[in-house]
Amino acid sequence: MGEMRKVLVTGAAGQIGGIVRDKLGYRYELIGLDRVDCGWHRSQVADLADFEAIRPAFEGVEVVVHLGADPSPKASWESVLDNNIVGTRNVYEAARQAGAKRVVLASTNHVVGFYPLKDDPYRAIYEGRLSEVRRPFRMLDQRDMRPDSLYGVSKAFGESLGSFYHDEFGLSVICLRIGWVMTPDDPAFHPAALSLWLSHRDAAQLISKAIDAPSSAGYAIVYGMSKNELRIWDIEEGQRAIGFSPEDGAGEEWTTREGMSGFMGRVF
Amino acid sequence: MGEMRKVLVTGAAGQIGGIVRDKLGYRYELIGLDRVDCGWHRSQVADLADFEAIRPAFEGVEVVVHLGADPSPKASWESVLDNNIVGTRNVYEAARQAGAKRVVLASTNHVVGFYPLKDDPYRAIYEGRLSEVRRPFRMLDQRDMRPDSLYGVSKAFGESLGSFYHDEFGLSVICLRIGWVMTPDDPAFHPAALSLWLSHRDAAQLISKAIDAPSSAGYAIVYGMSKNELRIWDIEEGQRAIGFSPEDGAGEEWTTREGMSGFMGRVF
Repeated sequence: MGEMRKVLVTGAAGQIGGIVRDKLGYRYELIGLDRVDCGWHRSQVADLADFEAIRPAFEGVEVVVHLGADPSPKASWESVLDNNIVGTRNVYEAARQAGAKRVVLASTNHVVGFYPLKDDPYRAIYEGRLSEVRRPFRMLDQRDMRPDSLYGVSKAFGESLGSFYHDEFGLSVICLRIGWVMTPDDPAFHPAALSLWLSHRDAAQLISKAIDAPSSAGYAIVYGMSKNELRIWDIEEGQRAIGFSPEDGAGEEWTTREGMSGFMGRVF
Repeated sequence: MGEMRKVLVTGAAGQIGGIVRDKLGYRYELIGLDRVDCGWHRSQVADLADFEAIRPAFEGVEVVVHLGADPSPKASWESVLDNNIVGTRNVYEAARQAGAKRVVLASTNHVVGFYPLKDDPYRAIYEGRLSEVRRPFRMLDQRDMRPDSLYGVSKAFGESLGSFYHDEFGLSVICLRIGWVMTPDDPAFHPAALSLWLSHRDAAQLISKAIDAPSSAGYAIVYGMSKNELRIWDIEEGQRAIGFSPEDGAGEEWTTREGMSGFMGRVF
């Protein structure tokens, strides 16, 4: 038995932070960082926008899981600038200075969010007009970029800054374009949710695979959704890059589950 | 004869600003904006990081040519944050609020700059090891993203923010991944320059085509280099998107011109 990896989790007080604590606490030596008290066994309170305040938390850390952000697609520019842009730069820089091996960035489907808001077949899937969807269609991939919000723009920034930190400094950066982690863990209330769903179990696997992937993973962008039949993203790349293999997945038959029928009826 | 388009040029005091003034001043009603006095007939001094200070300059403007930035690949994070990130957001937002139709963003080859620093055949071309280059090879395209500097990251941010402003607000945004505009206007001193060269004449055409392209151009990313034989970017997309058709171009025989032989000799 070797020592457990020392993993710093920013945004530890958030929903995904809680999943990391509950499902991965046995695997890693976890340290929580948030601007509010996350209540973890080991934790620190500091604002990501304050570089000097967060630096001490990075000492001796091997991997940083960077979840901390203003996650609202309606977030203002001022909030996005401080929390997501400056905050993410501070996380990369503190990780680099501390000699960390890797940053796992919680990116988001919102970096490509205007495809399903504007273009078929993605839009038809989100709106439940499934009879209009012609298969096969091109899955959105790692090179697509069409943010639907300042939040999405800030995560695209996090990806490209991560690419720079990898090429320039050798820091491994795994960007997870996370779908929709929801509580309760059941997407059967909207076709877009059936497409975007990342189950709690798959979220834990995704983050764990991103932490544990060999250093040869280098820089990667990985879509993080469960194996949903209505998915519109290339999740196979996640298998190649870090070994992510989702165990859950919503099937198209879920569109007829109780609670969905009313919605699908309105759309058709 | 209709009225001339009213075009605001940020960073007017810079090298490319001077080319716009000298070569396009007869076509447009130009207004220069810079944090130093650019000396144009109509101009305003303000810092792009100060939103309220720059707002008045956007009144009644149809197209904004956004050249203003810290253009150094060695620029610090603090300078990039203020001048390029906050400054570019302020330009889009002021353009939107003023009802401008389009922003032409001076992006840069540095958004994909780590390809020629790291990967063959791009690197071999930049270093003059031309006998090692197997053709055809994949040209870098609009979907590639591999910034080589905080400057490059900030321009990638400008591109994705422009994509958002286009989809969300209908603002047309043309991103020009500009090569290397040099003075004197002669690239025959280094193989990388032969690859990156954008002649003054082609720079003026590029910006003019970006200003005049029909509104159907919408959002586009266009590589801005002359038709150099050693190019590594897809410049054909610029023809399709905005009608850019470079008139100049360095041929491979330029590698044997006076001044080059010493360099090529050292590299081989």
